[in-house]
Amino acid sequence: MSRRPRPPTIADVEAAAERLAGVVTRTPLLESPELNERLGGRLLVKAECLQRTGSFKLRGAFNRIAQLTKAERKRGVVAFSSGNHAQGVAAAAAQLGTKATIVMPSNAPAVKIANTRASGARVVLYDRIRESREAIAAAIVAKTGATLVPPFDDPDVIAGQGTCGLELAEQAEAMGARLDAVVVPASGGGLAAGVGIALADRSPRTRIFAAEPRGYDDVARSLRHGRRLKNGPAPASLCDALMAPQPGRLPFAILRRLKARGVAVSDTEVMAAMRLGFAPFHIVVEPGGAAALAAVLAGRVALRGKCIAVVCSGGNVDPTIFAAALADTGDKA
Amino acid sequence: MSRRPRPPTIADVEAAAERLAGVVTRTPLLESPELNERLGGRLLVKAECLQRTGSFKLRGAFNRIAQLTKAERKRGVVAFSSGNHAQGVAAAAAQLGTKATIVMPSNAPAVKIANTRASGARVVLYDRIRESREAIAAAIVAKTGATLVPPFDDPDVIAGQGTCGLELAEQAEAMGARLDAVVVPASGGGLAAGVGIALADRSPRTRIFAAEPRGYDDVARSLRHGRRLKNGPAPASLCDALMAPQPGRLPFAILRRLKARGVAVSDTEVMAAMRLGFAPFHIVVEPGGAAALAAVLAGRVALRGKCIAVVCSGGNVDPTIFAAALADTGDKA
Repeated sequence: MSRRPRPPTIADVEAAAERLAGVVTRTPLLESPELNERLGGRLLVKAECLQRTGSFKLRGAFNRIAQLTKAERKRGVVAFSSGNHAQGVAAAAAQLGTKATIVMPSNAPAVKIANTRASGARVVLYDRIRESREAIAAAIVAKTGATLVPPFDDPDVIAGQGTCGLELAEQAEAMGARLDAVVVPASGGGLAAGVGIALADRSPRTRIFAAEPRGYDDVARSLRHGRRLKNGPAPASLCDALMAPQPGRLPFAILRRLKARGVAVSDTEVMAAMRLGFAPFHIVVEPGGAAALAAVLAGRVALRGKCIAVVCSGGNVDPTIFAAALADTGDKA
Repeated sequence: MSRRPRPPTIADVEAAAERLAGVVTRTPLLESPELNERLGGRLLVKAECLQRTGSFKLRGAFNRIAQLTKAERKRGVVAFSSGNHAQGVAAAAAQLGTKATIVMPSNAPAVKIANTRASGARVVLYDRIRESREAIAAAIVAKTGATLVPPFDDPDVIAGQGTCGLELAEQAEAMGARLDAVVVPASGGGLAAGVGIALADRSPRTRIFAAEPRGYDDVARSLRHGRRLKNGPAPASLCDALMAPQPGRLPFAILRRLKARGVAVSDTEVMAAMRLGFAPFHIVVEPGGAAALAAVLAGRVALRGKCIAVVCSGGNVDPTIFAAALADTGDKA
């Protein structure tokens, strides 16, 4: 990339919102007074799993690709992703008349691979253990002159994700809610950073939390130590969407400046959050997308007496996993 | 009721929308370009299952109770319902500071009984076979002076449900969609009638269809024969929310005037629609709430080359039934 990676400003997020008007769904901010009563606080759920392509990723991808020159668009775009970013880039490229090639691990959820192909993208599968997705993507870029659309370490991508935060802030205000905190699932940290930029402008007293799977809490540890750390070896997690090895440079710098904090949740806590998505909210949330809701439910971010919004960032989950979450013997919502 | 049951007008629906502003969720109108491609038409899904209380019923109940006099509100309200209307009345009454007593069949879905109680209503259970809910409700009215909130045969209730149609028409216009038809699940016909009034004003060329379970297609048969007919004996249906024995007087008169038509769907078709709700839309739709989506999927209302909106009217489904729908061996979406 020839551009200097300057962190996006609120003006960049607002410009992204204009670009995305009529392209993305303004996902609702849901609330259940009965649940609030039970939890002793006010919980607002940004149902971003209802977004086209099933996750927030369309926002950043579209905002990035829409700013390519005509010549760049003609040469196409490339992305590597285990799923949601793939679908976001594929759909954005299709809508903007650009060819997309997506490099995906062969063990990505079947539904994510199928949806990426359905958007008209060319999918190149690779072996997560033996091959390097970066090398494969770089070879495609070298050969075709296509532009790489990074999943999170890019100012336009972060600004696009930030539009989710702009909507959230507007919707919370319309509901008379003064947000004490917003909790956002984090992998590379692009969504959390973008939402953080929006909230810092619209609601500066709101704290930002990044929610991650236990064992993959690189953002939390990096923020605690003041420098980017990698995940160590960890057991598998249900949260296939939150597997980035370390925070992105730009997202980390933004989250650090905003004094964001990270919290980690277990698979069991994620499953309980998926059940709470099912009822009373009636949304389908994928494991990684439920990490922020899980963090509040499990008390990692205290709700009692407070008003907290969580982003449910994706809904692309295989039916068998969703059914297993519903069947789990934990607390039923 | 002392009021003369005059069908509501578009002005009544607009007044209801003002009363409901800030009370109900503006549920999104969802779309999947990839699915449209596959189906050969444009399908818009009004995700009313995301409404507070899990169904559209809050709209009509709130609009009715908000118009009671102070003295009437003090004496409380009564409703009989197998579930969604119960929750709508209970939540509306709680928000308006009115006591609610709900007469529910003892075999209603557990989740609906629990949610009704959670809203602070008093629940009176009755035996669907041996007792009359009308008689039980009438006895409560006689004893307490409470006001009965009917599930559909009431102009204020119908006007309230119509606000769902107003939103739908506005959202479709914003998406550049010219609706050939809107399909709405029907039991007594209150939602279909209210949505019909809204569409007749905002989009007069749009046809209205009522979708019902096979064997419970009283609205369809009544519209065909020009007079209100009752359901005959029929095998059980998954669609517990669509079990009214015949169309309401007012809804029927409205639907007839609008030249609405009815279509019937099987349990198998409903399950397929629930799977399509799960993906690509990521919403939890209950069986009855999925009837309209099922009607389009099954080709009862032809989509090819057309633009059709369906209302997914409720999401209060027991997890075991939802998991069974996901596990069904039909087409996976």
